[in-house]
Amino acid sequence: MFLSKKANLKGVSLEGDVTVIGPSSIGLGTVLGMYSVVGYPTYRKIRSLGEKDLTSYDDLSEGAVIGENCFLRSHSVVYERVKIGNRVQTGHAVLIREDTIIGDGTVVGTHAVVDGRVIIGKRVSIQSGTYIPPESNIGDRVFLAPFVVITNDKYPASKRLLGVTVEDDAVIGANAVLISGVRIGEGAVVASGAVVTRDVPPRKVAIGVPARVVMDREEYERKKREYEEG
Amino acid sequence: MFLSKKANLKGVSLEGDVTVIGPSSIGLGTVLGMYSVVGYPTYRKIRSLGEKDLTSYDDLSEGAVIGENCFLRSHSVVYERVKIGNRVQTGHAVLIREDTIIGDGTVVGTHAVVDGRVIIGKRVSIQSGTYIPPESNIGDRVFLAPFVVITNDKYPASKRLLGVTVEDDAVIGANAVLISGVRIGEGAVVASGAVVTRDVPPRKVAIGVPARVVMDREEYERKKREYEEG
Amino acid sequence: MFLSKKANLKGVSLEGDVTVIGPSSIGLGTVLGMYSVVGYPTYRKIRSLGEKDLTSYDDLSEGAVIGENCFLRSHSVVYERVKIGNRVQTGHAVLIREDTIIGDGTVVGTHAVVDGRVIIGKRVSIQSGTYIPPESNIGDRVFLAPFVVITNDKYPASKRLLGVTVEDDAVIGANAVLISGVRIGEGAVVASGAVVTRDVPPRKVAIGVPARVVMDREEYERKKREYEEG
Repeated sequence: MFLSKKANLKGVSLEGDVTVIGPSSIGLGTVLGMYSVVGYPTYRKIRSLGEKDLTSYDDLSEGAVIGENCFLRSHSVVYERVKIGNRVQTGHAVLIREDTIIGDGTVVGTHAVVDGRVIIGKRVSIQSGTYIPPESNIGDRVFLAPFVVITNDKYPASKRLLGVTVEDDAVIGANAVLISGVRIGEGAVVASGAVVTRDVPPRKVAIGVPARVVMDREEYERKKREYEEG
Repeated sequence: MFLSKKANLKGVSLEGDVTVIGPSSIGLGTVLGMYSVVGYPTYRKIRSLGEKDLTSYDDLSEGAVIGENCFLRSHSVVYERVKIGNRVQTGHAVLIREDTIIGDGTVVGTHAVVDGRVIIGKRVSIQSGTYIPPESNIGDRVFLAPFVVITNDKYPASKRLLGVTVEDDAVIGANAVLISGVRIGEGAVVASGAVVTRDVPPRKVAIGVPARVVMDREEYERKKREYEEG
Repeated sequence: MFLSKKANLKGVSLEGDVTVIGPSSIGLGTVLGMYSVVGYPTYRKIRSLGEKDLTSYDDLSEGAVIGENCFLRSHSVVYERVKIGNRVQTGHAVLIREDTIIGDGTVVGTHAVVDGRVIIGKRVSIQSGTYIPPESNIGDRVFLAPFVVITNDKYPASKRLLGVTVEDDAVIGANAVLISGVRIGEGAVVASGAVVTRDVPPRKVAIGVPARVVMDREEYERKKREYEEG
């Protein structure tokens, strides 16, 4: 257990052994899970240190901000300069790296990795095992099914990172891959297992490897209603 | 370290810092790995609590049941109301959520997520990184290769969850995706990387995106014998 | 915290609660992350033990060797008989199992699993969530994008493991699957989402399910330069 004296933990519940580094500010009613770490410093800072321990980390971490009534489950790590809104929940063993912003009411599933410099909107559902690299931009109410993989380098390993944008209300199916630079339009749908190499226009549904548009969101919604009625 | 006074831990080995919550019952000869958690309560219960800590969790958890001679490796989390048979092994950082049943002799690989309300048979091999959502039903002696992703919602995010059934002795290849509602027949085989959108009949082998039947299990077994002979 | 008296930890930084088992030798300037474990014994050994705890593990572990100026991030597990060179970095919650060799300057991303008996060269970049099974052989300067899945059994579950070889300077795209036994030639490229069922010749680029060669590395490099110029 390490709780920085610079951290604001008023009204925060600690499940058990928890590490909070730097001037982290955590809101009322938030729960920090066992064996989790908040405010972890970036490598750039750590490598400048002589002794690398929690005391020296605490000196240089800028801390993380987590809102009210959030739940960070066990074995998770949140880096410094992350800003998480209110009522955000994570699964277990989640990694959220530096300079990431996550909006209110978003869920980040177990083992998901948000690899830094990512913007995620409000009420987004990020399911288990999803990977979101730096420069990604995820709108509001987006649904990322389990094990979606987003990339940020079209010709690895290049000198240029080019992020993916997923606009509001888009749905990305399980294990789909979104290639560096694509834009998934507002309300568009990408099927499970698709590999998206080009932009998907708003409210279109794309399927396959490589993904091709096969229908409109309206038709998807019609099928969805039939499915929901069983 | 937190060991509930309500838990039965007779003849259990604890590797190191371990958390056991509620009236969990763990069999003779079972090993609990470092930094692992057993009997973790559901969110529904936790959110009703004022102070969220191990003492209050311990009051409301119904505990988990783990059989004899099991091995739960480090950094794993097992929720309350999970029932695990005898001689079950898990890898590291496994998550097994509530109301899951796992039969004798099954292996759950490192980083696998069994996301609650799942039935898994006996002597199943679940390899690393596999994702099994609620309502899934996995038969006996099934083989799930690494990073198989199973889904439970055909038109996400809908109001209806529709599980996948994998019957006895089926084999699912690495990184394959099984779409909500499909039934993989007894002894059927799904190739690596396949996306299965329709039922695969018993003892058939399906390949591709979307998956199509290309041969019988008999032919697969013939090829397998040739391969085994080198 | 458990630090074996047999371990050489001179000049090593410990972030927090760390477990080092057996005669592990860790180089100057290396950092061991919180809740991580080094020198973890193989199951074969553990099951022979009566009491399974850190003291008895310490008696039988052969330890791991980690070079100088490495960084093993939090929640990671390194088994006994692993040999890691100098300046190797891992992400969080990495698993590196027994009898694995990793060369100088290699990076192993968050949640990656190196499942034992693997040889990995120098300055390799293994991104998040990648899975590398036993018998795999990865050359120098290889790039494995996020969630690459490598397999080692062509007809699971067979009696024969047949590893994949990835030669020097090859690039494997995100979520690609490399099927047991294939050889990815020197400097070859595999596209994101590809499923590789046959060898890819040196300096060729393969795409699709199943993967087919579509261009030379030279053309890939030309496109890469254009991309880098924006």
